[in-house]
Amino acid sequence: MSLEAFLADCPPCPPSLPASLAAFLAKHRSPADAADHGDPGSASNRLSRPLAVVTSGGTTVPLERRCVRFIDNFSEGRRGALSAERLLAAGYAVVFLTRAGSAQPFSGGMEPAEALPGLLELAADGSVQVRPSRQPDLGPLLAKSEGARRAGALLTLPFTTVFDYLTYLKAIADAVAPYGPQAMFYLAAAVSDFYIPWGRLDEHKIQSLGGREGLRLELEAVPKALGVLRASWAPGAFVVSFKLETDEGLLMAKAGAALDRYDVHAVVANVLDTRKDTVVVVTKGQDGAGPKAHRIDRAPREEHIEDQLVATIAQMHRDFADQMQDR
Amino acid sequence: MSLEAFLADCPPCPPSLPASLAAFLAKHRSPADAADHGDPGSASNRLSRPLAVVTSGGTTVPLERRCVRFIDNFSEGRRGALSAERLLAAGYAVVFLTRAGSAQPFSGGMEPAEALPGLLELAADGSVQVRPSRQPDLGPLLAKSEGARRAGALLTLPFTTVFDYLTYLKAIADAVAPYGPQAMFYLAAAVSDFYIPWGRLDEHKIQSLGGREGLRLELEAVPKALGVLRASWAPGAFVVSFKLETDEGLLMAKAGAALDRYDVHAVVANVLDTRKDTVVVVTKGQDGAGPKAHRIDRAPREEHIEDQLVATIAQMHRDFADQMQDR
Repeated sequence: MSLEAFLADCPPCPPSLPASLAAFLAKHRSPADAADHGDPGSASNRLSRPLAVVTSGGTTVPLERRCVRFIDNFSEGRRGALSAERLLAAGYAVVFLTRAGSAQPFSGGMEPAEALPGLLELAADGSVQVRPSRQPDLGPLLAKSEGARRAGALLTLPFTTVFDYLTYLKAIADAVAPYGPQAMFYLAAAVSDFYIPWGRLDEHKIQSLGGREGLRLELEAVPKALGVLRASWAPGAFVVSFKLETDEGLLMAKAGAALDRYDVHAVVANVLDTRKDTVVVVTKGQDGAGPKAHRIDRAPREEHIEDQLVATIAQMHRDFADQMQDR
Repeated sequence: MSLEAFLADCPPCPPSLPASLAAFLAKHRSPADAADHGDPGSASNRLSRPLAVVTSGGTTVPLERRCVRFIDNFSEGRRGALSAERLLAAGYAVVFLTRAGSAQPFSGGMEPAEALPGLLELAADGSVQVRPSRQPDLGPLLAKSEGARRAGALLTLPFTTVFDYLTYLKAIADAVAPYGPQAMFYLAAAVSDFYIPWGRLDEHKIQSLGGREGLRLELEAVPKALGVLRASWAPGAFVVSFKLETDEGLLMAKAGAALDRYDVHAVVANVLDTRKDTVVVVTKGQDGAGPKAHRIDRAPREEHIEDQLVATIAQMHRDFADQMQDR
C-alpha cells in the first residue's frame, strides 16, 4: 500500500492538532518577521529559535478496532525524552510526538512502579514531603522544566497507534515545512514495520475459538514515511532517523541503506543491548565516498549518552542551516 | 499444547521467586501454628491473616526472543492495583503478580506522563516541595502505604511475558496450596489468548523484507490455566476470575461458561467502555439453578468501584472459608 493510500484509510487526524501546532509556531516566529511577513507560506519565515520535532516511544498496531489486543514495539521512550530535555536546554522549541504513557522530559527517569513511596514521605506533622535524598537531583530538573514551561518551548502531542503516528507526523510536517532548514526532525520513535489495515480490522475483541485452534494474522508492510518526508512533506528540513537492531552485524549496512534509500541527513545507529552506552551517527560521505561513521561512547562520569548525542546532532543541524542560508 | 507442555517449553522460573514466596508466607503464619506444626504440608497450616494472590496488567507475547516486538493486551492494571490496596486495608496479605510498569498500589493513579511537574514545585528557598493541592489525597495514601510496608503485607512480583506469568502463577499456587481456603486467587490480569511457542521464536529482530511484502504470524492458543489451578494446583483455594469484553451481548454467556468450564467460585464480568462504573459478580446458582448475577454500580460519590467490589469478594471469600472449616 502506498503512503497516500495508507493515510486515506486511517482514522482522520483530530482538527485540534493542526490548530495547536499553528499556535505553537506563531509563538516562536521572530517578532520582526511576524510583523513584516505575516504569510506563513512566505520564504522569509523566521523563527526566534530553532525547532525540533522529536518523535519518541513505540507505535502500536491494533488487532481490533475497539482495541484490546495490539502489537507493540519495545521502547520506553527514554532516548526521545532525554533528547527533548537537552534540545530545550540548547534553546530549541520542541514538538514532542510521544507515545502516550512513555517517558517524558523532566520526569527524572521515574518509573510508574517506583511510584510515590520512593519519592515522598510523611513528615512528623502529617504533611507530605519529598524525601531529602531526592532533593539534589529533583531541584535542577524542576527548574529546567519550569524554564521550558515559561518559554512555552515544549508542545507535547501524544499518540498510540501507527495510524495516529503517521497522520500526526504528516500534519506536523505540513505545519513545519515553511520554516525550511530551521526545523529538524529527530525521529526516535520505534515505528511498526507491519500492520493490519484499519479497513480490515474487526470491530470487537477477537474471540478465541476454544479448544486447540490458533490464530493466523496476515500483516502488511507499513509504508515508509521517511523518504516521503524528505522528498515532499518537508524537503527543506534537516532529518535524523534512528536505527535499532539486536544484531550488531547488520547495523552499519542497514544504517547506510537508510541514508541511501530515504536521503536523510543522518542516521543514529544503535544496538539494543548497548544503546545506553554507544551510538554511531552515520552521515553521507562527500563526493560519492562511502558513509561516515561518528561513534559516541558514554563517558563513565556521564549519566546519559544523550548529552553528547544531542550536542553532535545540534551542531550538524546548525552547520546545515548555515549552509542552506549561504546558498 | 497442554499446559504441562507449555510450561516445559517456557524459560524456567527464577529460583529467587519461590524463595521470596516462602519467606513471605512464613512471616504470615500464625505464631502458635508456626511453633506447633512447622511442616508446611500439614493440614493445620494457619495464617495470621487471609491471603490474596492478585494478578494485574496484561501479559505480552514476544515475536522475537530478544524482544523488540510483542503482542500486548490492553490493561493499565488499575483494577488490580486498586483492589490490592483495598485488600491490604481489609487485613489481607497480598501477593501482587503485576505487569512490570503497570499501575501499582498506593500510586494515587499517577501516570508517568503526569510526571513530576504536576506533583512537585520549587519553593522560594529552592527546595522541592509537594504542590499544596496534592497534599489532601497524598497524605492518607502514603499513610496506608507505610502501614502495609510495616506489616510486610505486600509481596510484589513483576512479570512481562505470558511465559513469565504462567510459570510464576504455578510457583505461587504451589506455595499457597497448603493454606487451602485461607487463600484467594483474584485473577485480574489480562492473559494473552494466542502466542508463538518459545521454541519457534527467532533469536533476533524480525527483518522487514523491503518492498511490499508482509508478514504472516501463526499463533497457537495459550493453554487455559484456570481449570488446572482449580482442579489440581490449589484445589482448596477460593478462585475469582475476570472477564472483559467489548461486546456486552457476549458478556454474561462468557462469564457463565467460565464458571462451568473452569469451576471458579466467582467471575467478575465487565465491559471495556463501562468497566470503571459497572461490574457484575457471577456465581453458581445453588442446586443446579443457573448462575447468579450480583451487579455493582459505582455510586456518584465513590471515586473507585473497587471499594464495593473488594468488599463483596472479601465477604464471599470469608463465607467460603467458614463453610470449608465447618465441614
